[in-house]
Amino acid sequence: MMNKNDLKPFFEPQAVAVVGAPRKPGFGYSLPLQFKEQGWVERTFLVNRNGGELHGYKVLKNISELPDHVDLAIVLVGAKLTTTVVNEIGAKGIKHLIIQSAGFAETGEEGQALQKDLQQAAVERGIRLMGPNCVGLVNTRNRFTTIEVVEEALTPGPLGIIAQSGAFGNVLLDEIHQRGLFISKAVTLGNRVDVDESEILEYLHRDPDTRVIMMYLEGVNDGRRFLGTLDKVTRDKPVLILKSGRTDRGQAATSSHTGSLSGRDELFEGAVEQGGAIRCRTLAELIAMARVFITQPLPAGPRLGIITSSGSLGALAVDTAVDNGLILPSPSMRLVESLRENSPQWMSIGNPLDVGPSGQYPTSLVEFVNDDSFDIILAVMIVPYAVVKRAKQLGVSAKAWFGDIRNSRAGASEKPMVVAMVGAREFREEITGVAGPGIPVLDSPEPAAMALSALWKYARQRSKSGSAAPERPRK
Amino acid sequence: MMNKNDLKPFFEPQAVAVVGAPRKPGFGYSLPLQFKEQGWVERTFLVNRNGGELHGYKVLKNISELPDHVDLAIVLVGAKLTTTVVNEIGAKGIKHLIIQSAGFAETGEEGQALQKDLQQAAVERGIRLMGPNCVGLVNTRNRFTTIEVVEEALTPGPLGIIAQSGAFGNVLLDEIHQRGLFISKAVTLGNRVDVDESEILEYLHRDPDTRVIMMYLEGVNDGRRFLGTLDKVTRDKPVLILKSGRTDRGQAATSSHTGSLSGRDELFEGAVEQGGAIRCRTLAELIAMARVFITQPLPAGPRLGIITSSGSLGALAVDTAVDNGLILPSPSMRLVESLRENSPQWMSIGNPLDVGPSGQYPTSLVEFVNDDSFDIILAVMIVPYAVVKRAKQLGVSAKAWFGDIRNSRAGASEKPMVVAMVGAREFREEITGVAGPGIPVLDSPEPAAMALSALWKYARQRSKSGSAAPERPRK
Repeated sequence: MMNKNDLKPFFEPQAVAVVGAPRKPGFGYSLPLQFKEQGWVERTFLVNRNGGELHGYKVLKNISELPDHVDLAIVLVGAKLTTTVVNEIGAKGIKHLIIQSAGFAETGEEGQALQKDLQQAAVERGIRLMGPNCVGLVNTRNRFTTIEVVEEALTPGPLGIIAQSGAFGNVLLDEIHQRGLFISKAVTLGNRVDVDESEILEYLHRDPDTRVIMMYLEGVNDGRRFLGTLDKVTRDKPVLILKSGRTDRGQAATSSHTGSLSGRDELFEGAVEQGGAIRCRTLAELIAMARVFITQPLPAGPRLGIITSSGSLGALAVDTAVDNGLILPSPSMRLVESLRENSPQWMSIGNPLDVGPSGQYPTSLVEFVNDDSFDIILAVMIVPYAVVKRAKQLGVSAKAWFGDIRNSRAGASEKPMVVAMVGAREFREEITGVAGPGIPVLDSPEPAAMALSALWKYARQRSKSGSAAPERPRK
Repeated sequence: MMNKNDLKPFFEPQAVAVVGAPRKPGFGYSLPLQFKEQGWVERTFLVNRNGGELHGYKVLKNISELPDHVDLAIVLVGAKLTTTVVNEIGAKGIKHLIIQSAGFAETGEEGQALQKDLQQAAVERGIRLMGPNCVGLVNTRNRFTTIEVVEEALTPGPLGIIAQSGAFGNVLLDEIHQRGLFISKAVTLGNRVDVDESEILEYLHRDPDTRVIMMYLEGVNDGRRFLGTLDKVTRDKPVLILKSGRTDRGQAATSSHTGSLSGRDELFEGAVEQGGAIRCRTLAELIAMARVFITQPLPAGPRLGIITSSGSLGALAVDTAVDNGLILPSPSMRLVESLRENSPQWMSIGNPLDVGPSGQYPTSLVEFVNDDSFDIILAVMIVPYAVVKRAKQLGVSAKAWFGDIRNSRAGASEKPMVVAMVGAREFREEITGVAGPGIPVLDSPEPAAMALSALWKYARQRSKSGSAAPERPRK
């Protein structure tokens, strides 16, 4: 059995060595600069056989010169030198390594042999190893990051990321904060000769900062262990998974990327399903799902209510919701009567409730959200920009147009609620402001319906598996 | 048989009457203002039984006062008054009407009766009618529009739109110009008591300004005619279709929206397939497809080449492409050798060609695009913003990073090419500039692969049906 704290020095090292720190711009060049900017300068040591100075650091010529409290090394030397360097690091007594170097199993036979040597050296030395062919990790709690990210990506949040590929992890970190997603930890696995997806899943399961887990995989190291781990983790935290290598040709692509054997997709699909995780079909879906799972409580039932200012977009959302296990009950008689009283004759009162251009969105929204017929709310908003532009000249705000979205749920805070807004880009920010951080504003109706369906699916299976009551997201 | 020019006064009226022009802000209020802004003030006449003045127009009290050269009337009166007004308009000799009023079949039994009366009046008077429950149309050639749109939406382009719903048409018009899509004509059908999707399809087929047709439907008026029309139209112009009402519950939603009976979805699916059209599954997919069909030539074969700076995103694109009928051949030996010579050892040379952070994108791109192994090119670009930010400080441009995208295809202009860029929003505009208007920059790999697959599917079936050589898009 592995020691529970075995991974701790990866995330909370005392001091870090960068071995093979490059002198010229290119891969890994900025790493020491990044450490400096994150406040890690005094805990960082560079090694390069030429010595001298770099980015204001003194460069050590040999690994043996490193101080004894260094407990994590990041390796950037070429693939052929890696095993030698790993042995030297091991001899120094450093037990945690992140190998960023590429050129291993993903490149063919010769690389496979190099990777085997590397793995053997790690086992012999009792070294824990991330990679090779990865970029390591981010921990927003202590602002330690071996991945070059923008400042905003280090804002602490509840999302844990496991990405097989460095580039993927990197770009998620760079992009998702622009959609209001903030992370706890992010780990890139690369060719995973040692640390794998199951072990990181377990780590994030224990991590109190992580509430939802997002994974990008190209394959699974140990199918049985992965299924068992998922089954445990998903009782407490939702796991969203995007996997490539569905097709034979896609598998060939993952093999030359991270040396992964993705295996038969049906087996993976089965493991995900049985393990209680949510499989996403596209990158865009993964991000939309994360936004909804992070911000919304779990629904008490599958009854979806859709309010919309566009009948078409409402109908598109219905198809997706029904295809994925939600039901659309009629509104209560009380709601129908109340709406009928205050609406133009042509307004279509039902579910979806299509208010059209009646101007009734604000008042209808509050009544609709609070109707007992619904467990889940999707508010679809269409914003014809020409109309908005004119309205804005007359001083009409997004709030006047669609109502006080954030507070419409005040009396029904147990219901998950999502906005899907289609239309003028210029109006999106204003709507997002009115919705507040607790209600995500997605840009299309189908992904919103899909994410709400997944939320119900997760809630149902968790209640079946007899887990504790769902933890509520922080407001 | 209908007269070919029967629809002309809808798109090219001599003069227009707005009947029931509202005096208070709300639906239809801005229509006369819009006419004024588009330069139609002298050809516009308002009718409202109260007379007086509105937006600087003199308001006529009676339809009979309209000048004789008015050949199109837009009706905004309440549903219950509509048939009376239509009779008066018919008596005046106006034969083309757009009924924007709602409150007909979509609202239930009473509305169904009103709609029946309306239809009968139109038949008796020999009137051609769009709607009710629609917002009419746009013709960018003469800048005539009964839909309130922003100025930019009136820029002429090759895309024809048929939207069952007014709101849908409106929002497409408002949004798609922000993605580089410009239209020829757009028509909203509403409850289509007379003019329907097949007739407009035929009109757009003949329209020399229209090269690609995009449809949003909630149902089909006459299945047999629709199939026959599609079959004819798609021999010359691609037709992209998004339809709601797939599920029973979704059908109920369309019925209360535009009174449409969407029918069994399998039948519709079959008609689309047999008729040679492309069915899109989501709004986002519809827009991505239109961007690719508008800008790209039809491929000579199914051989897709993917160049990427992220192995993961490359693999995701592979899965989608293979699932949808494309194949990924290996690059030619000549290309492999040339790349091997100039690349770092770890670089994965194949298809996808994953250049990673080698800095080889610009040179590899040109060689890759011109390799005879490929009929279609997908260039996936991942942009880690942290890295970009630092690079920009050093003066590195998007062009230096990814190469001269636009001119990389100079020697292979017969190949469709699409960019999928994931990452920092701030870099997107620059990449779009480097790609130029002829190469769309989508924001995710899967929709790009999906659209390229559809392009090949369309090309193949068109060559089977023995159509003339594909028309090339304008550069």
